[in-house]
Amino acid sequence: MKSAYQELKEQAWQANLEIPRYNLALFTWGNVSAFDSNRAVFAIKPSGVAYDKLSIDDMVVLDLDGNIIEGTLKPSSDTATHRVIYQENQSIGGIVHTHSTHATAWAQSMRDLAVYGTTHADHSPVAIPCTVILSEARVKKDYELETGKLIVETFVARKLDMLSTEMVLVGGHGPFTWGKSATKAVYNSVVLEEIAKMAILSTMVAKGELTVLPEHIIRTHYERKHGPKAYYGQN
Amino acid sequence: MKSAYQELKEQAWQANLEIPRYNLALFTWGNVSAFDSNRAVFAIKPSGVAYDKLSIDDMVVLDLDGNIIEGTLKPSSDTATHRVIYQENQSIGGIVHTHSTHATAWAQSMRDLAVYGTTHADHSPVAIPCTVILSEARVKKDYELETGKLIVETFVARKLDMLSTEMVLVGGHGPFTWGKSATKAVYNSVVLEEIAKMAILSTMVAKGELTVLPEHIIRTHYERKHGPKAYYGQN
Amino acid sequence: MKSAYQELKEQAWQANLEIPRYNLALFTWGNVSAFDSNRAVFAIKPSGVAYDKLSIDDMVVLDLDGNIIEGTLKPSSDTATHRVIYQENQSIGGIVHTHSTHATAWAQSMRDLAVYGTTHADHSPVAIPCTVILSEARVKKDYELETGKLIVETFVARKLDMLSTEMVLVGGHGPFTWGKSATKAVYNSVVLEEIAKMAILSTMVAKGELTVLPEHIIRTHYERKHGPKAYYGQN
Amino acid sequence: MKSAYQELKEQAWQANLEIPRYNLALFTWGNVSAFDSNRAVFAIKPSGVAYDKLSIDDMVVLDLDGNIIEGTLKPSSDTATHRVIYQENQSIGGIVHTHSTHATAWAQSMRDLAVYGTTHADHSPVAIPCTVILSEARVKKDYELETGKLIVETFVARKLDMLSTEMVLVGGHGPFTWGKSATKAVYNSVVLEEIAKMAILSTMVAKGELTVLPEHIIRTHYERKHGPKAYYGQN
Repeated sequence: MKSAYQELKEQAWQANLEIPRYNLALFTWGNVSAFDSNRAVFAIKPSGVAYDKLSIDDMVVLDLDGNIIEGTLKPSSDTATHRVIYQENQSIGGIVHTHSTHATAWAQSMRDLAVYGTTHADHSPVAIPCTVILSEARVKKDYELETGKLIVETFVARKLDMLSTEMVLVGGHGPFTWGKSATKAVYNSVVLEEIAKMAILSTMVAKGELTVLPEHIIRTHYERKHGPKAYYGQN
Repeated sequence: MKSAYQELKEQAWQANLEIPRYNLALFTWGNVSAFDSNRAVFAIKPSGVAYDKLSIDDMVVLDLDGNIIEGTLKPSSDTATHRVIYQENQSIGGIVHTHSTHATAWAQSMRDLAVYGTTHADHSPVAIPCTVILSEARVKKDYELETGKLIVETFVARKLDMLSTEMVLVGGHGPFTWGKSATKAVYNSVVLEEIAKMAILSTMVAKGELTVLPEHIIRTHYERKHGPKAYYGQN
Repeated sequence: MKSAYQELKEQAWQANLEIPRYNLALFTWGNVSAFDSNRAVFAIKPSGVAYDKLSIDDMVVLDLDGNIIEGTLKPSSDTATHRVIYQENQSIGGIVHTHSTHATAWAQSMRDLAVYGTTHADHSPVAIPCTVILSEARVKKDYELETGKLIVETFVARKLDMLSTEMVLVGGHGPFTWGKSATKAVYNSVVLEEIAKMAILSTMVAKGELTVLPEHIIRTHYERKHGPKAYYGQN
Repeated sequence: MKSAYQELKEQAWQANLEIPRYNLALFTWGNVSAFDSNRAVFAIKPSGVAYDKLSIDDMVVLDLDGNIIEGTLKPSSDTATHRVIYQENQSIGGIVHTHSTHATAWAQSMRDLAVYGTTHADHSPVAIPCTVILSEARVKKDYELETGKLIVETFVARKLDMLSTEMVLVGGHGPFTWGKSATKAVYNSVVLEEIAKMAILSTMVAKGELTVLPEHIIRTHYERKHGPKAYYGQN
């Protein structure tokens, strides 16, 4: 008998397979979930399973309280982080966490990733925020849940919209990205890896004088792809 | 019935397929056009279409006023930039824009790419210019058209010939290259990516003391490939 | 007739083939051994043989005094280093030495690789130690044997456990890693290469201000994978 | 009828095909020659021909005065550089010139490549020399021939043996390597690219404090591979 969550699990599975295809993670160091807002459940990769061994049936379905609805394997150890983000933003359709090399290297520097060029502005009109380090008390309470809350708090504190800036760097850890679908969330992980790489290289050239793109260029680039008058692509 | 622009569209299509082959762009982040100077029209990639979905018939043919002559898809959002460059240089046969990693990283530093070695001198006898940032007024007028004009102005202001230096870095954005054919323009994009990569690496070694190649070496290298007494290759 | 060490040799052979698969070494610049603690023997790659020419029968079996028990080829020139590490830690099942690019580059800097992020903390709760340079007297005595002793001494001097930190950088030379099996030791070589790469990139971003991860984050990450309450993976 | 130089041309052809295989050059930016000391002739790649179009019959055979003995194509534009090196060292069997990324980047810094680690010491007991820039007078005389002389002079001035240090960086240009055979010369190009890459990365980590390996370690590594008591490999 087919699962009632077959399509959701297939979306999550397909998106997880894109992780190694885009070189976003070594071994099992990345996980994708797909969210069904109508039923308020998400399907996520099981913990520690290699991508080339992963089947659709291995996906674990959970509700927003963290109860396992379907699946026999343990879900990703980062499940609570995904859950909190969906709780706060029910129009998000997918979330990705990886340790992609350049985005992680930037997160280790504990600095925001400013808008140094139009490649960044094409995807976000603001710096990609880098969170602070969680306090020891919060880590002891529930590390992954508090990581999700920290991400949400960081966006609130900076008056950022999680629906227009779909990426964050968790300080000292690495990137989380999201999007209207799991596939779009993976796309955003590739983008974040690339703009982090470009920023690291620009830093080397500029030797400390790297300047942020002026606001009128950032807006033009972001809006030609995402604004109400967007004219990029065929739609 | 075959298109009257079949050959031109095929040239543009072939050259666009070289973009992913040489790793010059992720997803759809690059576009190539091919120009027919006799008929003063060019064929260009449609906006936002993935390279592996691209067919010859998808190419859009435009005249130098920007009118679509043939094609059902929307042309690249950068079409006006290509158009201005052809208007000013009707012996150019192809133009490429990408966000290739190292050339884009250098463009983000807002610095010219000086002649640090013979690999550069083999392809241009001068620094690859990096444009300034367009003013807000010009961006609002017509962003892509003004970008094309900015490129042309930059070459005029520096007394550079667009036919001997076939590359530019648009400050804060990325590279444009051109050539006598669309294929040659892609070749130049690969060259620019490589000399930008070498320059970034040399910068790291030299720690601020990087010196430009002396003029007599630059000339010798450029002329053995491009001068009237060129002796590189079989012709 | 099958060798009495067939399985051990096959483990060593399989793990050696992973060296080129993970781009851990050019040509023949890496070697793996597998240890059988019951019989106190190990199988190791022969010296200077290319991975694509390597057969199971080429593996050389030695005891902990360095006597060849089986095999017609000369064992790896680094055999004595492997041997000393097994002598001191008979619960180790495999050892790897490579010249992987980023780990070797870090070793050339003569600095410990501090815990700059959770990717590192997931695999070791402390900095990966970098040994000093062996004295001339010790090099003349027996270079490879003394290198093994230097590794063991470095762990003793720093009160580190070779069973929880399964990696070392030999100063000016490159990485050695180990693990409960030869395959796990190769996994650790991939990890060390990646965390060295991330650390080099973070160094470039941070420009001298790179800070080490706080102890409560390090512990949490290490223990969710390795502690008594580990919850990563399916076991 | 088979060429009297069939075997020599085949050696040169095979070694040229290794250039793209090891990513040592883009397009046609590298050339290999093979030398026959008995007949004092060498076979070299024709100028500007792509590796995937290259046939054995395309190889050009020349004597040490630069006369073409066999072949219908123009030889590599760097032929005179190869010729001078063979004239001075008739026990060399092959020479390679590439613009491999990291070796070229180092050459652009105009600095010698010091012995920062054992990967280098395994292949050369001294720094890889970087030549000065040729004077304008010498460039005008005969650029490629004078480049060959400059390489030989650099080794003489530093009392270096071209048979034990088989690599050089031509300042502002890029690497030349050689060896007892064309295949060994290509091997040395791969080595030089890798040790240049490691040195650039180490420079980034060390931030100015990078120290050279002590002489007793350099000697030990060089001699275990190349000295009279060499014990690396199966011979």
